[in-house]
Amino acid sequence: MPDPQKVLLLLSGGMDSTTLLWWMRAEGIPEIHTVAVDYGQRHAIELACSAALSRLAGARSHRCLKLDLQQIGGSPLTDAGLSVPHAARNQQVQTVVPYRNMLFVTLAAALAETQGIPTIYISPVRDDYAAYRDCRQEFYDALEGALRLGATRQTDLHIHTPFVDKWKTEVVRIGLDLNVPYDQTHTCYEGTRPACGRCDACTERIAAFRANGVRDALAYETEIDWTAG
Amino acid sequence: MPDPQKVLLLLSGGMDSTTLLWWMRAEGIPEIHTVAVDYGQRHAIELACSAALSRLAGARSHRCLKLDLQQIGGSPLTDAGLSVPHAARNQQVQTVVPYRNMLFVTLAAALAETQGIPTIYISPVRDDYAAYRDCRQEFYDALEGALRLGATRQTDLHIHTPFVDKWKTEVVRIGLDLNVPYDQTHTCYEGTRPACGRCDACTERIAAFRANGVRDALAYETEIDWTAG
Repeated sequence: MPDPQKVLLLLSGGMDSTTLLWWMRAEGIPEIHTVAVDYGQRHAIELACSAALSRLAGARSHRCLKLDLQQIGGSPLTDAGLSVPHAARNQQVQTVVPYRNMLFVTLAAALAETQGIPTIYISPVRDDYAAYRDCRQEFYDALEGALRLGATRQTDLHIHTPFVDKWKTEVVRIGLDLNVPYDQTHTCYEGTRPACGRCDACTERIAAFRANGVRDALAYETEIDWTAG
Repeated sequence: MPDPQKVLLLLSGGMDSTTLLWWMRAEGIPEIHTVAVDYGQRHAIELACSAALSRLAGARSHRCLKLDLQQIGGSPLTDAGLSVPHAARNQQVQTVVPYRNMLFVTLAAALAETQGIPTIYISPVRDDYAAYRDCRQEFYDALEGALRLGATRQTDLHIHTPFVDKWKTEVVRIGLDLNVPYDQTHTCYEGTRPACGRCDACTERIAAFRANGVRDALAYETEIDWTAG
C-alpha cells in the first residue's frame, strides 16, 4: 500500500535538483527517498555527487538506476564522438536525448510503485522551456495522466514540479537562503572538476549566481567575474 | 524529418506481436522496422525469436534495446528467486513489472525520433485488460499525448494498437489466415523449448488455438488435446 509520507526525488546531483532536495527538507516532507539515473553519461561525477548529496541531506534512501541512453544515440552527452556545444544561444537542443525526462520519471514511477511511494518530485525550471519541451508543466500533467492509467493498480500518483515556473536565478536565491552546498553539486558538461566555466551548462549556472550578485562556491578552471551584472 | 512511410513495431517474438507483424505486411505498410527489448527476462529465447521473425518477415531493420527491469524487481519474469505462477485465473497480475509497456513504448519512441520514424505499433489484446491496465486503449491514448508533448520537436507521433479490441482467439484466427510461422514464436514463461504447456502463458495460448479448432504448430513438452472445446 502506498504510504503518503513517502516521496521520491529524481536527484541528478546538479544545481536544480539539489536545491529542490533542500527545499523539500525545509518544507518538512517527512520521508524523502532519492534516485539517480546512470544513463551512460560521459562523466560518472554527477552520480557520485547525487549519492553524496542525498546522504548529506539525510534522505532515507538512495538508488542509482541504470538506463542506457547511448544505445539511442544522438546526443553529445552520451556519445563521446560528438563534441559538447560551447556557450551560444539555442544550442541546448543539441544536448537532448529524446524522451530522457519521460524515461527517468517512468523508471522512477516503476521503482516508486514497488516501494509503495505515491509521489515523485522532479526539478524542471523555467529556463529549460525553449529547448526542452519535456520541461513544461503541460507535459508533466500529461505524463502524470499516462502513469495513473498505466499503473498496475488504481493509483493517486502525483508528479510535483515546484520549480517549473521559476528561473534558475530564483532557484539559486532559494538555495542560497537554505545553505545548499553548491560546491558539492555538478553542472559542467565537460565533467571536469574544477568546472570548465565555458560550456553551455556552466555558462547558465554562472549567470544565475551572477544575477544574484553572489560568487558560486563551486571551483572553476578559469577566473570568473562574479560582479558583472 | 519524419518519413511517413516508416513504422516501428515492438516485436517481442510472442504470438500477438508476430501476428501483428504479418498483419502489417499484409496491409501493405511499406517500411517496417522492428525493435525488441532485452529487459533482463530470464530467457533469451524470445529475443532470438524476435530477431529471426523480423528477418523472416522481411522487416527493414531490427534493433534490440536493453532496459534492465531486474533492478526494479517485483516480478518472477525477471527475478529468478520468484516462481512463475501456474495456470489459475487472475494470477497474471503477479507477472507484472510496473510500467513495463510504458517504458518499452517510450524507449521505442526515443529510437523512432532519432531515426525519423513517426509511427509505433504495439500489440496489446483484449484478454490482457483485466490484469494489465497498461493494455487498455485509454492508456495508449494518454501515452501518445504525453509522447507528443515531450518530443524534442512538435510531432504527429501515432501509437497504433490494431489488436486492442480483439481476443487472443481472434488474433490466432487472423494469423492462421496469414500463415504466421507460430512454430517459431515464443510464449512459455518457463522459457523451455518445447514449451511447458502448463504455465499461464502456455495455457492462454493453447486455449486460443483450441477455440479455433486448430493444432498449434509449436512443440510442447506435454501431450495437448487440441479438440477439446
